[in-house]
Amino acid sequence: MLIVKKFGGSSVADKDRIFNVANRCVEEYRRGNDVVVVLSAMGDSTDHLLELAQSVNPDAPKREMDMLLTTGEQVSVSLMAMALDALGVPAISLNAFQVAMHTTSTYSNARLKRIDTERIQNELESRKIVIITGFQGINKFDDYTTLGRGGSDTTAVALAAALQADACEIYTDVDGVYTADPRVVKDAKKLSEITYDEMLELATLGAKVLHNRSVELAKKYGVQLVVRSSLNKEEGTIVKEDTTVEKMLISGVAADKNATRISLIGLKDEPGVAFKVFNLLAKHHINVDLILQSIGRDGTKDITFTVESNMAKEAMDALKNQQSMLKFNEISCKENVAKVSIVGAGMATNPGVAAKMFEALYNCGVNIKMISTSEIRVTVLINEKDVDLAMQAIHDAFGLGTTK
Amino acid sequence: MLIVKKFGGSSVADKDRIFNVANRCVEEYRRGNDVVVVLSAMGDSTDHLLELAQSVNPDAPKREMDMLLTTGEQVSVSLMAMALDALGVPAISLNAFQVAMHTTSTYSNARLKRIDTERIQNELESRKIVIITGFQGINKFDDYTTLGRGGSDTTAVALAAALQADACEIYTDVDGVYTADPRVVKDAKKLSEITYDEMLELATLGAKVLHNRSVELAKKYGVQLVVRSSLNKEEGTIVKEDTTVEKMLISGVAADKNATRISLIGLKDEPGVAFKVFNLLAKHHINVDLILQSIGRDGTKDITFTVESNMAKEAMDALKNQQSMLKFNEISCKENVAKVSIVGAGMATNPGVAAKMFEALYNCGVNIKMISTSEIRVTVLINEKDVDLAMQAIHDAFGLGTTK
Repeated sequence: MLIVKKFGGSSVADKDRIFNVANRCVEEYRRGNDVVVVLSAMGDSTDHLLELAQSVNPDAPKREMDMLLTTGEQVSVSLMAMALDALGVPAISLNAFQVAMHTTSTYSNARLKRIDTERIQNELESRKIVIITGFQGINKFDDYTTLGRGGSDTTAVALAAALQADACEIYTDVDGVYTADPRVVKDAKKLSEITYDEMLELATLGAKVLHNRSVELAKKYGVQLVVRSSLNKEEGTIVKEDTTVEKMLISGVAADKNATRISLIGLKDEPGVAFKVFNLLAKHHINVDLILQSIGRDGTKDITFTVESNMAKEAMDALKNQQSMLKFNEISCKENVAKVSIVGAGMATNPGVAAKMFEALYNCGVNIKMISTSEIRVTVLINEKDVDLAMQAIHDAFGLGTTK
Repeated sequence: MLIVKKFGGSSVADKDRIFNVANRCVEEYRRGNDVVVVLSAMGDSTDHLLELAQSVNPDAPKREMDMLLTTGEQVSVSLMAMALDALGVPAISLNAFQVAMHTTSTYSNARLKRIDTERIQNELESRKIVIITGFQGINKFDDYTTLGRGGSDTTAVALAAALQADACEIYTDVDGVYTADPRVVKDAKKLSEITYDEMLELATLGAKVLHNRSVELAKKYGVQLVVRSSLNKEEGTIVKEDTTVEKMLISGVAADKNATRISLIGLKDEPGVAFKVFNLLAKHHINVDLILQSIGRDGTKDITFTVESNMAKEAMDALKNQQSMLKFNEISCKENVAKVSIVGAGMATNPGVAAKMFEALYNCGVNIKMISTSEIRVTVLINEKDVDLAMQAIHDAFGLGTTK
């Protein structure tokens, strides 16, 4: 069996944790399996690099930021190879050049295009544990790129697909996927299985266990994921196409506090308006989340959407600069909002789920600012300060604390 | 004009020093010149990485050590590119993969074989300052290698040769090459010019301004070097084939305290003995310095040599393990010895230079343990504690404090 194991930065933050990971890899190796390990940068080392860069040039070229940040994973993988050597197991570390890990050209937010597997396979054939830098790639200019948030998860899934691995295990600091954030909702329960689609909705909405791009990729290539803790041997949560357990009405409640709402008021009610707005934002590499379009006054329309808070200024500037082209009357920005969502594959065939969620919010006095739904998800935008209250209320209303 | 500038780790140790270097590069660039910058890792960052490695595996594989250490220069070059960007000058950083910088396979002590100049030339043509990681290369396995001590100097000289640069400037924390270490000999004078051969002898002997491999390479390809300070605008010392000033009897006095003497007593007096001893040490990548062979008792011979102190244990172990093959009676090791040398191209045609040096040492009561000479150098091995006294005495005896 070929197993891909991914460990995040906190799992390799110091010597003891590095050896903890190394020992888990050795156990797998001693079972006779081939082991590929994907690592993030150690603990807060990326933050240190960001501070350094910030002190030199607060508006540094992204190409050079990636050149700087990719050193972080290279440190992790080489130390892990040394730890495995100390444990008497042959190992080799590889960076994005050595693999090679081809991506699109966009610095700081590249997408994986193709992974050369020859070097990895050769090293596996000589019975080495192969340790690969997560988060990074190289583009057609032979420059380093980074994959953006959750990039190491994506690296792991892409490697599992390219190598046709038998399993892809994502190790985090939680035991698996819960019905809600256990730090907020005390009686949250761990799920033994979840579908890609449910996970995708939860990931997009900020459950912070797996990044959506990695889940999308896993779904696309049918890579079965296991999310589990690097600190204990609990079973974790399996993410796959169809769960064998009966579809639950609701799998979980998720919140994302990192949102800012932007509204364009008084756009012309003519074809192509939404295209122009979101094409402009896409050109600035700004990801837009919830979108809501409504009829405005006097034959105009309004478009409201949310973006990650750290992209809000760039989005506002881009839109203001193009006010004459986009022809809107007003633009407004509301910070400190949060998305709260319920997700469940069983929702599609059960009416009244959204209503039950709204009732729970009404009962605890939380005002809803926006609503967005999909087949298996209902999301509301509320004030950030109400998030914890709202999550507990919804969790209770659906009886998630008592489900297994 | 194309200028290669090399700055050591202390020159890029923090934000202010990075901008100091960046400003000097911008001055050169604004004169209309093409600028290639070679950097070492920031300040003590290499030491931090070594500590990390040491804590994980005190006997880490060298391949992984190089994988770890090469991150240091990558951090420097990306930050320098950011600093230049902040100063409004286009710049790009390149690592050993991106250049590419081909070396032999030996990890931790590789030698440069070939530098691809295409990428660098393309970047220079688009009027960018090109910043290149010193000290590192890649081998035929597509793995990182490092060039050993003084590696960044070697990178700079090799780049100057490959790019047919008009000048190669090595910036250090001293103003240039002195007749003796100014910290030891108060009236030491800076030399305006020195030949490759003199510099080579001085470098080998521990003058610590330029590493010998970089000078060898400069001599081989006729790259004229300038050694100058990164902290002031003094003229520095030019290192070239022939100096225009009259050949001085003695250019300088150098000391190297980092030596251990090893003696093999009672070797058989037959052909191949020296070959076997030094071939064994070469296989362990142990550089041997002074070698002295003398007739021992009863038809045997003794071989005495010096090694860098940090290699002494490995050398002793290697020799002891092969005692039966090498057939020596005894082996002994003397630590805390030092080499003191005088160097001068004029020495070859002037008799009595060595005698004058020995007289100076006799007059101040310093005992000589070994003597070794070349065409332009006389070296003595003395007790480490006598070094400063010996240097000043020799410097005075040759009147170096009054020469220009």
